[in-house]
Amino acid sequence: MVADLPRRLVAEALGTAILVATVVGSGIMAAKLTSDVALALLGNTLPTGAILVVLITILGPMSGAHFNPAVTLVFGLRRDISVNAAALYILAQIVGGIVGTLVAHGMFELPLIQISTHARTGSGQWFAEAVAAFGLVFTILAGLRFRSDAIPWLVGLYITAAYWFTASTSFANPAVAIARAFSNTFAGIRPVDLPAFIIAEILGAVVALLLAGWLLAEPKPAPVANPKLKAAE
Amino acid sequence: MVADLPRRLVAEALGTAILVATVVGSGIMAAKLTSDVALALLGNTLPTGAILVVLITILGPMSGAHFNPAVTLVFGLRRDISVNAAALYILAQIVGGIVGTLVAHGMFELPLIQISTHARTGSGQWFAEAVAAFGLVFTILAGLRFRSDAIPWLVGLYITAAYWFTASTSFANPAVAIARAFSNTFAGIRPVDLPAFIIAEILGAVVALLLAGWLLAEPKPAPVANPKLKAAE
Amino acid sequence: MVADLPRRLVAEALGTAILVATVVGSGIMAAKLTSDVALALLGNTLPTGAILVVLITILGPMSGAHFNPAVTLVFGLRRDISVNAAALYILAQIVGGIVGTLVAHGMFELPLIQISTHARTGSGQWFAEAVAAFGLVFTILAGLRFRSDAIPWLVGLYITAAYWFTASTSFANPAVAIARAFSNTFAGIRPVDLPAFIIAEILGAVVALLLAGWLLAEPKPAPVANPKLKAAE
Amino acid sequence: MVADLPRRLVAEALGTAILVATVVGSGIMAAKLTSDVALALLGNTLPTGAILVVLITILGPMSGAHFNPAVTLVFGLRRDISVNAAALYILAQIVGGIVGTLVAHGMFELPLIQISTHARTGSGQWFAEAVAAFGLVFTILAGLRFRSDAIPWLVGLYITAAYWFTASTSFANPAVAIARAFSNTFAGIRPVDLPAFIIAEILGAVVALLLAGWLLAEPKPAPVANPKLKAAE
Repeated sequence: MVADLPRRLVAEALGTAILVATVVGSGIMAAKLTSDVALALLGNTLPTGAILVVLITILGPMSGAHFNPAVTLVFGLRRDISVNAAALYILAQIVGGIVGTLVAHGMFELPLIQISTHARTGSGQWFAEAVAAFGLVFTILAGLRFRSDAIPWLVGLYITAAYWFTASTSFANPAVAIARAFSNTFAGIRPVDLPAFIIAEILGAVVALLLAGWLLAEPKPAPVANPKLKAAE
Repeated sequence: MVADLPRRLVAEALGTAILVATVVGSGIMAAKLTSDVALALLGNTLPTGAILVVLITILGPMSGAHFNPAVTLVFGLRRDISVNAAALYILAQIVGGIVGTLVAHGMFELPLIQISTHARTGSGQWFAEAVAAFGLVFTILAGLRFRSDAIPWLVGLYITAAYWFTASTSFANPAVAIARAFSNTFAGIRPVDLPAFIIAEILGAVVALLLAGWLLAEPKPAPVANPKLKAAE
Repeated sequence: MVADLPRRLVAEALGTAILVATVVGSGIMAAKLTSDVALALLGNTLPTGAILVVLITILGPMSGAHFNPAVTLVFGLRRDISVNAAALYILAQIVGGIVGTLVAHGMFELPLIQISTHARTGSGQWFAEAVAAFGLVFTILAGLRFRSDAIPWLVGLYITAAYWFTASTSFANPAVAIARAFSNTFAGIRPVDLPAFIIAEILGAVVALLLAGWLLAEPKPAPVANPKLKAAE
Repeated sequence: MVADLPRRLVAEALGTAILVATVVGSGIMAAKLTSDVALALLGNTLPTGAILVVLITILGPMSGAHFNPAVTLVFGLRRDISVNAAALYILAQIVGGIVGTLVAHGMFELPLIQISTHARTGSGQWFAEAVAAFGLVFTILAGLRFRSDAIPWLVGLYITAAYWFTASTSFANPAVAIARAFSNTFAGIRPVDLPAFIIAEILGAVVALLLAGWLLAEPKPAPVANPKLKAAE
């Protein structure tokens, strides 16, 4: 990464803000233009997938382009980022996300501060969030292992798919979830439903980290006939 | 490939599971949100194409990312994979696929075990499945010959097209077909319709292998005037 | 190109067949599933764009992946292909295209041989076809000049756009137009409307060739003060 | 850039013409085929995003592929282009854009010259245009810094997203805005609404330039203990 910590934090906040402005803004636009909910979800999905490719490409070299506390947590557990930096990353993501919601509301001339009444709860939703975060984190870790240049596309395409194959439309991101609680529009979520979503996302992320630790391990060197020779190297 | 056989089998099972969870889950989501079947098919197509690009990119370096017994069969006939490994691959794909169906049902709070009543039969459907598998296998073999780095995209885009241009929406995959028989939702298929689908898929795959063997053959060296000189090289 | 002429001709016929099967087949599927014509056109557009990326990637190294007599004509005028080979290419494209229509009909259990009654005529349509072919050929020639590896994507994306921005939905291809005259479905065109379409497509292609000849010309070396010094180099 | 100024200006005019023909033409097509406005916007979005990838790839090496006075202004402020050339670029973009509108009208057999009555005004729209242009210019500048080969994709994907997440459907381009004022169709804008749009776009672009100047700055070399040693290098 080419940047110092303040720039990295601005990159995280800016990226999360644009991501949330896209999720919330395109949801407002889509719901305004059609009464077909599948079409509205499509109008929410394509912009989100597209902007993720853009944001990860242009801000990845700055901050790593996490935009997601669950991802930052995983990199913290891998010791790829210090605890202090991780905490500041997560703060920047949450603040950025909320700013993104305000920007979306401002563009559509809606009250800036809102609280969502959109219920998203139940075991299916929670399981879906765990699956969504599992898939996202596994995609990132396997991408890093084999094709790190492809990660912007991998994440954009993964989320495009996960919007549709998970029952929760794949939040998979605690900072985005918090920001969406401040919007009583298509993309919103009741604050009371946040804790379970966030717990499920973290669980899914950690399971992906554990699986990737085993599945993607570098192959061990071939065993040698005489271990002493090996040790003498 | 960088992995040992157990990891390769887990990669095949995991990839097929996520693929089927996407096919079945996005079908459930789409059918729930709209009554327009073309829109539902679009909501089924885009996630499937997108997740294929992701899965083949991240798991291809592990196992080759077959996720498909017809593809494994073709590589077996080419002697790219041993008979034993191929048999285990196919088993892993079938088990993974069924797990994918269960995961989709769990996320949408549907009964985990279902049997499809969705009839998919008739000469048009069978011909379509043969065409679908022919195109898929030919795409993979020609991709391997000329642009192996592009195969994730080629397969994702091919299936995106084949969902629409084949009358059967292009299953093209016996393991996925079996897994879809366990879901009485948008993506399902009656168990009784499976054998003909699977036979058609295998036929199409084998025809593609034969055609590719001739069409994509490496050009022979230019003939020399005096064969003896050639032999003496 | 790595192949001998028979293989190149088979590649042209196969590619055009799959292209037409996609155009006609996805049109049938889309029109069957929805009464919204914009949605049907979307269900026709996405598969066509996707399959073009695939076909040009996998068959381009064999035959150049023209699949289009207007494109072959342009390469003939540029002396990139001999007159004889060009004539055989065009024949292969037309035969392949008609086979593609038959395959689509077979998959959807429709009468194999049909004659379209879909009127596509008028100055707007003709102008649109000229614009469509102009854009396609210019895209290919500029792509060859600057980013030949990107041509599959450029053509797939160009046609995705041209389906919508031209009044004719951008046939832009005489062989595909002829093949579509044999299908009385969504993608069809009356035989009587073919000649004007084909003339417009050829005109557009030739204008693109002329413009590209000037616009994309290699820059001349900087003038030298004393031509003799230059000549003595 | 490989071209002399006349060719660069033709490239700018041609690219802007095709871009506007796509925006206006696909809007006409979409509005003609469906009464669902979200679907019409989708039929407007996908072609626009796709053609941007194509145009920037094939004309970028000629002229830089600005197609946008706000972008040219930013490059002028960065001293990447002379004032004279910038002025001619902007003129070429405006003329090209208007030609694009005429071409779209011609293809759809509409009166060639029209004046839009489509009101697009209010603080939300203006804020949206500033956000849209900010995001576009920041994407371009960060892309240039880190992944200049990816810029065609970044811009195409960014605009795909911005069509939906901004309340104004993201004109983000004064030349395109002017050209759209000459079309009383789906994509039109009243001439009286142009000045505020253009001012907002320029403001957004300049803010992006300022932010990028700080955020994307090359890291300074590490401080040295003795500045004299440094100075003596």
